[in-house]
Order: sequence, then C-alpha cells, then structure tokens
Amino acid sequence: MSNLKTKSAQRHFKKIALVGKYQADGFAHMLLNLANILKNLGCEVFLEAETAQNTTITQISSVAAKDFQSNIDLVIVLGGDGTMLGIARQIAGQDVPLIGINMGTLGYMTDIPLQDVELVLTEMLKGHYESDNRYLLEAEVYRNDQIIGTGSALNDVVVNRSGISGMLELTVRVNGQFMYNQRSDGLIVATPTGSTAYAMSAGGPILHPSVAGVVLAPIAPHALSNRPIVLPSDSLIEIELVGGKDVSVNFDMQSLTRLQVGDQIKIKQSQKTITLLHPIDHSDYRALRQKLHWNEHPSSF
Amino acid sequence: MSNLKTKSAQRHFKKIALVGKYQADGFAHMLLNLANILKNLGCEVFLEAETAQNTTITQISSVAAKDFQSNIDLVIVLGGDGTMLGIARQIAGQDVPLIGINMGTLGYMTDIPLQDVELVLTEMLKGHYESDNRYLLEAEVYRNDQIIGTGSALNDVVVNRSGISGMLELTVRVNGQFMYNQRSDGLIVATPTGSTAYAMSAGGPILHPSVAGVVLAPIAPHALSNRPIVLPSDSLIEIELVGGKDVSVNFDMQSLTRLQVGDQIKIKQSQKTITLLHPIDHSDYRALRQKLHWNEHPSSF
Amino acid sequence: MSNLKTKSAQRHFKKIALVGKYQADGFAHMLLNLANILKNLGCEVFLEAETAQNTTITQISSVAAKDFQSNIDLVIVLGGDGTMLGIARQIAGQDVPLIGINMGTLGYMTDIPLQDVELVLTEMLKGHYESDNRYLLEAEVYRNDQIIGTGSALNDVVVNRSGISGMLELTVRVNGQFMYNQRSDGLIVATPTGSTAYAMSAGGPILHPSVAGVVLAPIAPHALSNRPIVLPSDSLIEIELVGGKDVSVNFDMQSLTRLQVGDQIKIKQSQKTITLLHPIDHSDYRALRQKLHWNEHPSSF
Amino acid sequence: MSNLKTKSAQRHFKKIALVGKYQADGFAHMLLNLANILKNLGCEVFLEAETAQNTTITQISSVAAKDFQSNIDLVIVLGGDGTMLGIARQIAGQDVPLIGINMGTLGYMTDIPLQDVELVLTEMLKGHYESDNRYLLEAEVYRNDQIIGTGSALNDVVVNRSGISGMLELTVRVNGQFMYNQRSDGLIVATPTGSTAYAMSAGGPILHPSVAGVVLAPIAPHALSNRPIVLPSDSLIEIELVGGKDVSVNFDMQSLTRLQVGDQIKIKQSQKTITLLHPIDHSDYRALRQKLHWNEHPSSF
Repeated sequence: MSNLKTKSAQRHFKKIALVGKYQADGFAHMLLNLANILKNLGCEVFLEAETAQNTTITQISSVAAKDFQSNIDLVIVLGGDGTMLGIARQIAGQDVPLIGINMGTLGYMTDIPLQDVELVLTEMLKGHYESDNRYLLEAEVYRNDQIIGTGSALNDVVVNRSGISGMLELTVRVNGQFMYNQRSDGLIVATPTGSTAYAMSAGGPILHPSVAGVVLAPIAPHALSNRPIVLPSDSLIEIELVGGKDVSVNFDMQSLTRLQVGDQIKIKQSQKTITLLHPIDHSDYRALRQKLHWNEHPSSF
Repeated sequence: MSNLKTKSAQRHFKKIALVGKYQADGFAHMLLNLANILKNLGCEVFLEAETAQNTTITQISSVAAKDFQSNIDLVIVLGGDGTMLGIARQIAGQDVPLIGINMGTLGYMTDIPLQDVELVLTEMLKGHYESDNRYLLEAEVYRNDQIIGTGSALNDVVVNRSGISGMLELTVRVNGQFMYNQRSDGLIVATPTGSTAYAMSAGGPILHPSVAGVVLAPIAPHALSNRPIVLPSDSLIEIELVGGKDVSVNFDMQSLTRLQVGDQIKIKQSQKTITLLHPIDHSDYRALRQKLHWNEHPSSF
Repeated sequence: MSNLKTKSAQRHFKKIALVGKYQADGFAHMLLNLANILKNLGCEVFLEAETAQNTTITQISSVAAKDFQSNIDLVIVLGGDGTMLGIARQIAGQDVPLIGINMGTLGYMTDIPLQDVELVLTEMLKGHYESDNRYLLEAEVYRNDQIIGTGSALNDVVVNRSGISGMLELTVRVNGQFMYNQRSDGLIVATPTGSTAYAMSAGGPILHPSVAGVVLAPIAPHALSNRPIVLPSDSLIEIELVGGKDVSVNFDMQSLTRLQVGDQIKIKQSQKTITLLHPIDHSDYRALRQKLHWNEHPSSF
Repeated sequence: MSNLKTKSAQRHFKKIALVGKYQADGFAHMLLNLANILKNLGCEVFLEAETAQNTTITQISSVAAKDFQSNIDLVIVLGGDGTMLGIARQIAGQDVPLIGINMGTLGYMTDIPLQDVELVLTEMLKGHYESDNRYLLEAEVYRNDQIIGTGSALNDVVVNRSGISGMLELTVRVNGQFMYNQRSDGLIVATPTGSTAYAMSAGGPILHPSVAGVVLAPIAPHALSNRPIVLPSDSLIEIELVGGKDVSVNFDMQSLTRLQVGDQIKIKQSQKTITLLHPIDHSDYRALRQKLHWNEHPSSF
C-alpha cells in the first residue's frame, strides 16, 4: 500500500504484555479473559507493571514498560486511544509492536472490538497482520542557549497561553528559514497520528498515517490567513516566544515546560517510532467515517 | 534541505528559451532586454513559438515547446504563476528546468523580480541555484470501463458541478479502500503546487513543495466534518460520480471532461515532473508572507 | 421568547390543505390517513392541487396554492424541508400558516414526526402552538438600468459561476456603501432559514430564526479573510458582477437568471413572510443537534 | 440607514473630556494640541483623571470617568480600539457619547485619523455626525445558587481553560432551552462590537454593529459541526461548566472569575449602551477592508 505500511509474517509473538488503565467495574475480568484467550493460543502472558498495580491482579507476572524490549514480543492494549497514547510514548524506541483492543468505542489506534478479539488475534498471531509505523516528535526548549526542558510526542507539541492571558506571539523558522511571526492563542505541531486529535479541532487537515509530513496548526490566529501548513516530517521547526505571558509548551498534553519571552523550542522528527499492528482487512478510514459521521451510503437523490 | 530540493552546479545552460504570454504595452521590449542580458552572459537565446507569435518579435529564432528537450537547456518565464503553469504543463516530462521572473507581483513560482534579473541570472547561470522538483497528477476518466478522457495537472484535478445544478455526490476510494460518500459542490485533488491555489480557497492546508502528499479538499461539503485530508502522493485515488447533474472534471482549469452518473476518475502521481530553479537565497515562505499578509515583524506588545 | 415567536390561541383552523410531493409507495395512503385524522378532529380537508395530481387521489377536493388565502385556514405539509420550501415560496404573502410533518427524518421546518401526528395536531388545533415567522428575500436583476429578472427566496439568493469557468468577481455595496470587491466561486445571501442550508456548507454561521439578520457567505473566496458577515435584515444589498464568465443568480436553487459583466442584483427583505406553527414544547435546537451530531449528553470525563 | 444608527443634530457639545493611555513620546504634546483645537472651537476641555495622571499634564482640569455624566457632554479618545474599549466599559450607561481618534492605525471604533482631526471635529461639533449605539453584555456567575461574580463586556464574555489543562465541557441553554453539550477549549459570547475581535479568530462571523444579535463561537471544538451560532441579542444564555480543570470566565479580557465544575454563567444584554459618534461620511466597511486586506479595486482579469 504505502512505504510505511506493509503486510508481513516475519515476527513471532510468544511473550505478550497486556496494558490497560481503566478502573471500571469488570475491567480486571475482561483482562483475565483476554489473558486466557492468549494462553490458549500458546502465548506466555504478562501484565504491564502499572496495569497490574491498578487492577490488583496478582496471578499474572508483571513487567515494567521500560523493560519490554528484552522480555516482550508484543503489547496488547485494552482501552481507548488515550491508553494507547500513554503506553506508546513510554515504549517508543523499543522494538515491540502494539495491538489496540477497544471496549465498544472504535479508536483511531484501538481498532479491534473486544467481542471479535479471539478470532482476530488468532489470525494476527499466525502472522496475518499489517504493520503501521508512527513517528514521534522530539523537542528541546532553550533559554539563553541552555536546554531547560525536553519532551517527545506521538500526537503533538503545543505552545499555548493560559486562559487568563492575552494572545501570544511566536516567530517560526523552518530549517533555518524565517516563516512568519504569528499572533494567536498558540501553535500545534502535530504528527499524522496527532492530526485527528487537537490539531483537527484547530482547523488542521487530516494526515494519513503514511504521509511523511508534520502539520503546523495555529490556534485562533489573529490573521485569518494563517492557514495550517504541512511540512516534510524531517523539517527542523524552531519556535521562539517573542511576546505573551503565562505561556507553556506541552507534549501530548502529558508533560509541560513553562516559557518566558525569548525561549526557543526546537522540534524535529524523533529517531523513535512505534509500530501498530492491524488485522489485514483493516480500513484506514473506518474510524474517520464513524467518528466524523461521514456518509457510508449514497444519499437517495 | 529536503529530498526534493538540492543545491547543485552540474547543469550548464547555453541554450535558453524565453516564454511570456502578456500582450501588455512594453512586454516585447522587456523580453528583448532580457534576451540581450542573456546574450551578454554568453547564452544562445530562443523564443518559445507561441510567445514569438504573440509578441510579433521576429529577430529571435523560435522553438516550439514540444521540442524543447532536444534544443533547449533552460526555460525562463517572464510573467505570473499562470504563465508558468501553462508552459510547465506543456513541457512536463521533458528534462528542461524553468526559472520564473515576475514583473512586480511576486509569484509562488515566479520568484525573481525583473529589476534584479541581471544580477540573479548571472549567479544562477554559474550554477549557483537550488533545484525544486514538482510532481504532476494524471487522471483517466472511465465510463462503462472505457476511457473517455485523460488529463494531467500541476495544480489540481477538480470535480465540480456547474452553478445551475444542485449538490453532487461522490464515492471516494483510496488504494482500493472505501473512504467516504461525499455530498458537496465538488472535490479538489491538489498537489503541493496547487495547495496554494484553488484548494486553499476551499479551506485546504498549505503543503510545502517538498511534502510527498496530495490533498483532497471538498468544496462546500454538506457534512461539516468532511475536512481536507492529505494522502501520500503515490496513492491511487478513485472518484465515482454517484449523483448530480451538469458535473465535469477539469485539469488545472485548462481542459475538461463532462461526467455522467457512474463515471469514474482514477488519479495518481504522474511519472512526469517539472523542475524549478531558484536563487540560492530563495525563501520558501516569502511569497506566502506577501500574498497572505503574514506578519513579517513582531507586534509592539 | 423573542419578538418573532409567540404563543397564541387566536386562530381557528377549520379548512385545512394538505401538501406533499412524494410519489413513494404508500404516500397516498399516509395522506389519506392524515385526512381522516383531521376530519375526525372536525376539520374540512382539501388537497393542494399539484399534490392531488401527483397522488391521483380524487376523493378529496383540491385547491390551487395560489388560492389558499380565501379558501384555507392552515396548510399541513407531509414531507421534508424541500417540500416545505417549495410550497412556502408559493404561498408567501398569503396569510395562511404552515405545519410540517416529517416521515422519519426530522427537518428544520418539518418538526413533527408522523407517528405523533394525531396527538400533536389535536393539541395544536385547540390553539396550543407557537408561531414562527420567517422572512423572504426579494431581488431584482438589472442590466443597463433595465430589470431583466426578479426572484424571491426563503433560503438564499446565490450568485455563482458554473463549474467550467474561473473565479468571478463581485462588487458588493450595502445601503449604498461600498463593502468590497470579492473574487470567489460565488456569494450566498441567506436568510436565517437558509443559514442552515447552503450557506452553512460555505462556512456561514447558524442564525436563529428570530435574528433580524441576513448572512453574506462567500463560496471559496480568493482572500481567506473574506469571512461571512451578518447584516441587518432590512439592508439593501447590491451585487455587481465585475468579472467572470458563465455566471448566474438563483433563488432557492429553483429559478435562475444568467448574468453578464455589468449586471447588478439588488436584494432586500421582502414584505412577504411565511408563518410556521410548532407544538408548544418545540425545541429550536433539536434538529440542529440531530442533524449536526451535536452532543446531547455530557462526556464521561 | 438602520434602526441603531441615525443622523441627528440635537446634541450640543460644550464640555469635552479627553482620554488616552499612551505613554509614547510626544503623546502629551498631541493631547495638548487636540485640547487647543477644541478650545479654539469654543469648547471647555477636561482630561479624564487617569489620563491626566499618566501624562502628568497639570494645566488642564481633570474629571474622573465615573463622574462624566454630570460634567461632560462628549468624550474624545486618542488612541486605539483597546483604549476605547477600556473607557467605554467604564462609562457605559452614562449618557455621554464617544469619538475615537487614531494615531495612524485605523481602528474599528477609532475611525478618525489624527491629521484630519481639526476639520472633522469642526463639522461634528456643528452637529454633523452619525450616532452608533453599541450594547454591552452582562453576566452573573453562580455557584450553588449563590452569585460569586459579575461582569460586563462590550466585546465578549469568554469561558476558557488555561493552557495546561485538557478540554472543558459546557452545557449551553438559551432562554431555558437546552442547546448542546460542547467539548472545546472554550466558548466566546460576543457582541457585534466583539465580533471582529477574538470571536473572529475563533471562526465567528462579522456582525454589523446594527444587528440585534449575539454570536456564540466555540474555540477549537471537539465536534467539527459546532459552528458559530447567532442568537437574538435579547436571549438569556446559560453556560454550565460540566467538566474540565483550571477554567475561568473573563469579561473583555479585563476581569475574571475562576470556575469550578457545576458553576453557571448567565449572560444577557445589558441595559447599558455606549454611543459612538462618526463623521457623516463614515464607512462601516473601511476598517474591515483595511484590517482584513479586502480588495478595494477590481482585479485585472
């Protein structure tokens, strides 16, 4: 299909870690069921350490996410895209792929419904799957030429103001070239993975996961012509805060550095990627259609 | 900078064709001046055949655009992006690069001001330039499995209705996968080159010329969530007309095929490209800043 | 609630005309059922003449829409917003209110589901209803100071190009004041009723039916800052075609005048209105929520 | 022209207060020049008290803004729309009109260029002016049925989150009717005056000052179909915070109340208005054309 997505049957998945953050009633039960299905399929099953702790399941051995690469062949996430985002950020760079199982609400990354899980995993563990690589962004924050913060993001790096201050102003340079000064509530730098998240609410385009691009989407820009712009994903994006108060930069909304006027953020594609596995009949557009209420069927004219 | 844009000094430009479509007062004079500058720089100068005809200049030999590859090393266009678009479509696939000179209004492709032309061309003819490859789209229109039309586009392939009919309805498939049914005034499939043209008016994002992407921007879609989507440029995009009257598909607004319900348009990246040459201090963002009134200078806070 | 919408019990509805354009299977049957319900409620029932013709129902007397005012107290429309739009345009200015019944798909104007019709109409015929006045636009098209066309619109007056021509250019004046020159695919001048139709697809805001405003929404404007603008509904809007080919103006997409460069369209609020009647528990926002997939319920945070 | 804007010659302006907040070099000098012009036109001139303090001008008597109504016939503001906004909020409800003088940058409210001031004011003080009334919003913030804050706004009431928290969720009711639950970065409730300020950056329409409407513009809404909506200006708008952290409501970005989940904001049109005076050749659209780079002149086709 495209250069980043290939059908393959090379990997063998024996040791599988289960991840889930939900404390909902019955969640531990679902997780144990899933573990049994996998054992019956001949796998050795582990729980990610935090998942074990949250669910108080003790009858399955646990492994910390940071130790997956040497202990685990495959990660199966039970939950929503938020749970997937959290674990993917932690294991990015480890050569361990992920499969996402949803519990009723189809996610962009969690695309297998729980009720189909036995049938689907049986096929996938035989090697019948598609591989879908997603890149991460990494950023360094500079003050007076000193690094004061770093972060990585699977969805987006966001510079924005707090609600109680006025517009901020940014100077943006790309590969050393001046692009613009922008007055706005902030700027979202999003990967294709993040293009369907916050960037879309700010008016950004959807980027297919295989596009080697990064989108810059301004939030409520003063100049109406400050359209979203898609750059090659290997661009070096430098954002300098030239005006504004109470401004910060965050990474997937999970970590944060507060900024002062004069601070610079340098953003580039990370060496780290994550790999999602999908069933071979996976549709890139099903989640979009469902979540965005796109028409499935022709209208009656 | 990026994979599609490289500094190089390999090419030698001896035989240069001049192109310009303007019948404005003094245009022939400007063209003759430009010819003299190039002769003084040691070049052999030709006029593109239509340009010769339009300007009634007879003292310079002319070459038809279709014969450039065997006769010409470099094309210099004097005019606006429209003139550049016209000649680029004609010579796409011939291995002859283009330089664009504007007469006062900076273009996205015609980036050298006429008043700087002697200084700038002197440097560029020495081999000091950047190379900027642009891909074209090509499309085939099918009715009952027969091809009824073909076209290529540097900017965009546009399916749209005429003003006197209601919304049309399209089914869109990408690489054989169903994407959506869309009701709208039409759909624009645009290259990065075309992303700053009609697609932008329809709400599409700007794509940097180096992004290997193609943008699908709906025109006045019935469903507000039918956002522009960026696909890999090597995608096969199939558009089927499932409803609507007085619908046609056009290519860079220069050629056109009328459609009936049931017709299919298959769009893919062409093998043909064109190559623009820029001075080495070329800014990718200057034309955007000027045309879109983007801020050059920080505000006084 | 607002100045244009009042609860009242003054009118008495004895003579009722039924309108419906559907040739769907069973439509005549539904219409006859509705007629029986109304007869049982003590009403005298008529069919609008075209409805009678289309349904080939002969056992009910028919009245032409143009003669409603002297023969009919109330019009009941069975169908969708398109059917309502058609009949409302015909009887605008006659002092006869309308009630809209939908057959499964909630409309903005056809807000009563067929299955609730007996219960709801029983209450409404007792005088328990809300009155909702909608204004129309009327337009005159001038060429060389001669009127060459006129039209009225409940939704919108639209100037646009056909798909095979380039952008058009318009000069817009409001109450004699120059507003702007606009290059675009066209311009939509919409009433609040029309604000949820074509104007919304072009990026226009939703106007509550009670707002005494008219919205000008450009279609794919060249200048990204050509935002939709809301003017007082009593404004005189003059649109002059200053450039473009194959341009026309249409009224509710139902009638049309072809334009030449230099033609002027003068648009103002019509003296004519139509009056919709709603059940007293009518929600102004239910159709918006349903059609636009707005959230009904708080998310689980 | 419209119901809110009338030419009249009734008022006589003898006692004039000057307002300006700039500490720029030469500002005091400009203010004294303006005072002299007005004295030569037979007026008695005062400085607004804070202006006097900031400029350290002592040779002109000062009057506090809160005491304008009994002491002053007319306020003349020298500065930008921000200065106008500040003083207008303070004197709203006092029956004293304002004239705005800009110092080079045309404002929406400060429409008279300083260099034309003598000529223009001479005419306006003779009674040759247009009157332009602008309404304010007023809001009460409730927690457990207790008012915990109030505010008024000439531009907008804005509920939004700080940059370091996730989306907030709001329930919006209009005149007691449920409209929607909305997930977003926030919601802007703007007057026509505010429609060209923050609301426009968030995608809201421009409202002519004479439109009796109020616009609700969501900021980066999760649902792409959460379009801006224009309601009658006499609507009661109730916003309840049903989810989110670090949320606040602000009034013209000048005062603020922090919110907790469950808090409610009730917003309605204030009894207070302000009155701007314009020269009789005033254009409602000149500032829009200039600030939004709208075309003044037809293109050369």
